[in-house]
Amino acid sequence: MKAVRVHQYKSDPSIDDIAEPKLQGPLDVIVKIGGAGVCRTDLHIVNGDWEAIQNPDLPYVIGHENAGWVHEIGDAVGNVKVGDTVILHPQPSCGLCLACRAGRDMQCSGDAFFPGLSNNDGGMAEYLRTTARACVKLNADTNPADVAALADAGITAYHAVRKAVPYLYPGTTAVVQGVGGLGHIAVQALAALTATKIIAVDRNPAALELAKQIGAEETVVADGNQVEAVTELTGGGATVVFDFVAEGGAEIDAWAMTAPAGYCFVLGYGGEFKAPTLDFVAGEKNVIGNIVGTYNDLAELMVLAQAGKVTLHTVQYPLESALEALHDLDAGKVRGRAILVP
Amino acid sequence: MKAVRVHQYKSDPSIDDIAEPKLQGPLDVIVKIGGAGVCRTDLHIVNGDWEAIQNPDLPYVIGHENAGWVHEIGDAVGNVKVGDTVILHPQPSCGLCLACRAGRDMQCSGDAFFPGLSNNDGGMAEYLRTTARACVKLNADTNPADVAALADAGITAYHAVRKAVPYLYPGTTAVVQGVGGLGHIAVQALAALTATKIIAVDRNPAALELAKQIGAEETVVADGNQVEAVTELTGGGATVVFDFVAEGGAEIDAWAMTAPAGYCFVLGYGGEFKAPTLDFVAGEKNVIGNIVGTYNDLAELMVLAQAGKVTLHTVQYPLESALEALHDLDAGKVRGRAILVP
Amino acid sequence: MKAVRVHQYKSDPSIDDIAEPKLQGPLDVIVKIGGAGVCRTDLHIVNGDWEAIQNPDLPYVIGHENAGWVHEIGDAVGNVKVGDTVILHPQPSCGLCLACRAGRDMQCSGDAFFPGLSNNDGGMAEYLRTTARACVKLNADTNPADVAALADAGITAYHAVRKAVPYLYPGTTAVVQGVGGLGHIAVQALAALTATKIIAVDRNPAALELAKQIGAEETVVADGNQVEAVTELTGGGATVVFDFVAEGGAEIDAWAMTAPAGYCFVLGYGGEFKAPTLDFVAGEKNVIGNIVGTYNDLAELMVLAQAGKVTLHTVQYPLESALEALHDLDAGKVRGRAILVP
Amino acid sequence: MKAVRVHQYKSDPSIDDIAEPKLQGPLDVIVKIGGAGVCRTDLHIVNGDWEAIQNPDLPYVIGHENAGWVHEIGDAVGNVKVGDTVILHPQPSCGLCLACRAGRDMQCSGDAFFPGLSNNDGGMAEYLRTTARACVKLNADTNPADVAALADAGITAYHAVRKAVPYLYPGTTAVVQGVGGLGHIAVQALAALTATKIIAVDRNPAALELAKQIGAEETVVADGNQVEAVTELTGGGATVVFDFVAEGGAEIDAWAMTAPAGYCFVLGYGGEFKAPTLDFVAGEKNVIGNIVGTYNDLAELMVLAQAGKVTLHTVQYPLESALEALHDLDAGKVRGRAILVP
Repeated sequence: MKAVRVHQYKSDPSIDDIAEPKLQGPLDVIVKIGGAGVCRTDLHIVNGDWEAIQNPDLPYVIGHENAGWVHEIGDAVGNVKVGDTVILHPQPSCGLCLACRAGRDMQCSGDAFFPGLSNNDGGMAEYLRTTARACVKLNADTNPADVAALADAGITAYHAVRKAVPYLYPGTTAVVQGVGGLGHIAVQALAALTATKIIAVDRNPAALELAKQIGAEETVVADGNQVEAVTELTGGGATVVFDFVAEGGAEIDAWAMTAPAGYCFVLGYGGEFKAPTLDFVAGEKNVIGNIVGTYNDLAELMVLAQAGKVTLHTVQYPLESALEALHDLDAGKVRGRAILVP
Repeated sequence: MKAVRVHQYKSDPSIDDIAEPKLQGPLDVIVKIGGAGVCRTDLHIVNGDWEAIQNPDLPYVIGHENAGWVHEIGDAVGNVKVGDTVILHPQPSCGLCLACRAGRDMQCSGDAFFPGLSNNDGGMAEYLRTTARACVKLNADTNPADVAALADAGITAYHAVRKAVPYLYPGTTAVVQGVGGLGHIAVQALAALTATKIIAVDRNPAALELAKQIGAEETVVADGNQVEAVTELTGGGATVVFDFVAEGGAEIDAWAMTAPAGYCFVLGYGGEFKAPTLDFVAGEKNVIGNIVGTYNDLAELMVLAQAGKVTLHTVQYPLESALEALHDLDAGKVRGRAILVP
Repeated sequence: MKAVRVHQYKSDPSIDDIAEPKLQGPLDVIVKIGGAGVCRTDLHIVNGDWEAIQNPDLPYVIGHENAGWVHEIGDAVGNVKVGDTVILHPQPSCGLCLACRAGRDMQCSGDAFFPGLSNNDGGMAEYLRTTARACVKLNADTNPADVAALADAGITAYHAVRKAVPYLYPGTTAVVQGVGGLGHIAVQALAALTATKIIAVDRNPAALELAKQIGAEETVVADGNQVEAVTELTGGGATVVFDFVAEGGAEIDAWAMTAPAGYCFVLGYGGEFKAPTLDFVAGEKNVIGNIVGTYNDLAELMVLAQAGKVTLHTVQYPLESALEALHDLDAGKVRGRAILVP
Repeated sequence: MKAVRVHQYKSDPSIDDIAEPKLQGPLDVIVKIGGAGVCRTDLHIVNGDWEAIQNPDLPYVIGHENAGWVHEIGDAVGNVKVGDTVILHPQPSCGLCLACRAGRDMQCSGDAFFPGLSNNDGGMAEYLRTTARACVKLNADTNPADVAALADAGITAYHAVRKAVPYLYPGTTAVVQGVGGLGHIAVQALAALTATKIIAVDRNPAALELAKQIGAEETVVADGNQVEAVTELTGGGATVVFDFVAEGGAEIDAWAMTAPAGYCFVLGYGGEFKAPTLDFVAGEKNVIGNIVGTYNDLAELMVLAQAGKVTLHTVQYPLESALEALHDLDAGKVRGRAILVP
């Protein structure tokens, strides 16, 4: 089969012809890929930024945002059958540790893996090996390419919004800082799950225009005065700030935009968070970490997606044009999310 | 192996010599039984009361409160290995449905089963077939016979207490109605997890004496004036009432003992709950259902048990004397919990 | 001033000319009424149904759904000033007991009162005495007559929906049984605060038509097969059932419509709730009581109302025509809510 | 009356003879002081450290940890009467803003004040003016001097523990870093409200000895290897870390001691919290702010105190010896908490 493989860091991946993946265990599932999202993390992987953390054996197939159709299943798989349309949680979890038993898949202390990131082939290929625990069944008529990017970008944004729902009752305010791939899903999820006042902050006026169309009540251009603007719009700070940037000073802005007793949700990374400990005491403010989401988060998000409450802007590329997609993403030429299709 | 089998309802089970259970799937686990609790439900099963609900093929082995040592494991089992000491959640769940993925094992909509109750052989035998999802690993030096009854009676009481913790802050009151097998664990769990004022209610003064020793601050003899007594001790009703009786009028008393905005947890069964709908509106009172508990409930309870914070009073009988144990239980001669041992 | 007073039970109230209310304490507020809702409870009061519970000295002024403008304030009032547009929580609470200090106004154990229901004159008059703790400030341009009915019917429906939000994530189902004055607000609040699938149940097709327009995805005519219909639409029961009827057998239907591990919220009254205690154990189902709501519930609801997310269908009557309004309500001639205006 | 007043920053306060405070509003309460805690914050005030934040008119009376007996009450006071024994929440709140109505006293946006810190005389005097909203009634036989320090140090520790209860189920671990005035109450509150494994960390072996006696299962000397020691004891980090130091590098240690998906509660101040934003994403870790507590927190803590579950080590000084107490505190000579008594 064709697959996009990294052979050497800081060099373009190549489209190779390799053997199809095989079932390795009773819960394994082989999925025929219908759509594979191209994510900024893929650029980081190619650049070697993840080498120290994951250190996979090269060459290996990238691609961690996948949806498609079930091709083959192991003996113990009971939740999907061959032919089902599925979207894949990016990290199949063990299902047996205490974290898994509480539904906290990302804290799995067992043999979880992350195809396309850990030392396991990913989904920029014709077929992918994952497990039953990653498969969320979709309506038969759902096009995998339309939803694939919800598998990672979507679940991450949704997970954070879902955790914030208890804080975002009517009369509160929520800031979405960075209305890109994740942020524009956060805006839609906030509009679907809460009646909070949504304020979008971004450098790019086009992103803010989109934010308005999908649920933001107010928009603020990040031109250097964004903290003041948010402070004024919220009367002293937002109840919850979702920081999808978290670098280049945005992480300091996010904290400054957070109201007393409010919550600063960190979703981007790259910067350093700094605050006097007195800030936590005088203001009773909180910083909340976020990593991907649970299996059920993804299942819930798919309910919203299939009901049309969360939609993705995508640009499709044939699998063979994966390099073009990666280059376009790197060059800032992709509007919405690039998706590789068979 | 020896096993206690029901051949015909309303007749004594017999001790049969049957084949040992075999692994049937990759997540299966065969456990050598070290202790099997004898529960009132077993009497009900023998009496045919569960026929309409579970309708197992006869003959079959009863026993749903089990602990022991791992004897054999399937290919996909990763959480225990041969020789481990384990206690068994009574209902191995599928692990793949949305309820399982949220940690709500008892709401499993997949292929969960309940050995000794559903059409699957139970643990009053030398060996039992269960799955990896039922196995909670214990310290090697724990004696399975000391904890077996926590597998069903214990988890059920603990699950209810755990759900009530948010309501039971200092200054509140909790009533435990029925300080028997489940109730005396509830008292200990309440003492371990909260600083609420615990009030034990029972007909039996000896049960109340025990309740005092293990954490109850007040005791009330159920002599017909128990509602008045509780109302006075609590200044108008308890924040939470745990009703382990729920028949013979106790279910009406439990509701009457519940304070405005309070919670009546139903754990026993047999009676009919009745209340004017106005009670729910005028008093904003609630009735909370409870069934067994989650895998993590059992794991947490074992932490308490191994720390000595929850202990069981037990009487051991050799497996061969199972009928004697059942008869003693039926005759009200068992103090604490009867446990069959190899 | 003019006021609608009950002089004798089971007789029509009369429109009397009485003295204006006076400030009695430092937190008191005199409100000039701009709108007073006419509620079915008023018919019950006139009929003497509340005599045993509240036993006010007759004659007294009815009317417990009030909005208007602040006319006079006591020395300690700091949250509103003369001229402010306000809606009034129906039960001013003491503010000093533990329940009030936790925000649970309806469980106030201090000197709370309920004008128009307890032994205190209500709002079917030109002026009403309440306290600062009942006043929710509105935008100056809000017409009190447009929102008055949210003061009791609205807050009650909203309070229940608000409590149910944690259970109603995407993929769940909610039944609103009885889409009348309260139910049609519940539908709107559910649509504003959750992404659950809303199913409206009512005998009246016109009510169901309205339900569709304001957020219900499915509707079921209560023609005797409603339990089966809901069971089928939900795949085995709804996650949450809001029962605004709770009499005449509806309370039994509501329970039957509730899924395992689900919640049956009781909001109507008149009937008797009955269920085997086994239902609570086998299904882990719950019954949740509900009474009016908190001050903050009303404040949040007004945010939704002022944003146009919750709207009321009202019919205005001059205060002088109060008897006509009461008669119309009794005769089933009022579409939406009858509101008395100055 | 006698009162300890600051006349000039960086100079000793003096014991002055001044007029007794008078009622100023209908909710005011004059309390005869029975015990006034001497807190490190008082040293900071004397040093001028709070000038920029609170800027009170000098001279003024310090003392913000107070208990005593009700001496005089305003017209609208309904929760206490003259002669009642009371402990005082340090910040009387307005009772009318949305935060107060939700029970979040410390986020009061109305006319809250903080006697002894804001521009209002404190309790190192014979009498203090506060309001009904600050008064928690005690048993008549409680000695105010025994509990006074719970009014600020105690409520703060308790508030944090109370918020953490949902995370601290059996099998989890909690670190208390800094077992001083607040920390030793946190240890006791943790033992009373949870079954978590408590690990105390302090430089001072005597503090750790005390920690063991009052509920800590493990102790770690803060000798430079405390992060490693905690990591080993907890198997990778504590579920919750309570950082009562939060300066001098302890705030960095606290974060390092926090497990993935865990919570770092900041209670001390002085340092700067720093962490790569990647820490929040990769580990889903959280930082939680904490300021004093709610009125109900104090009421609950008094239930524990009066039940003997939380006790304070105190050293009494006559009010006239206030300077000696302040000097002793500054010199590190006070074991436990210094309390001024009449």
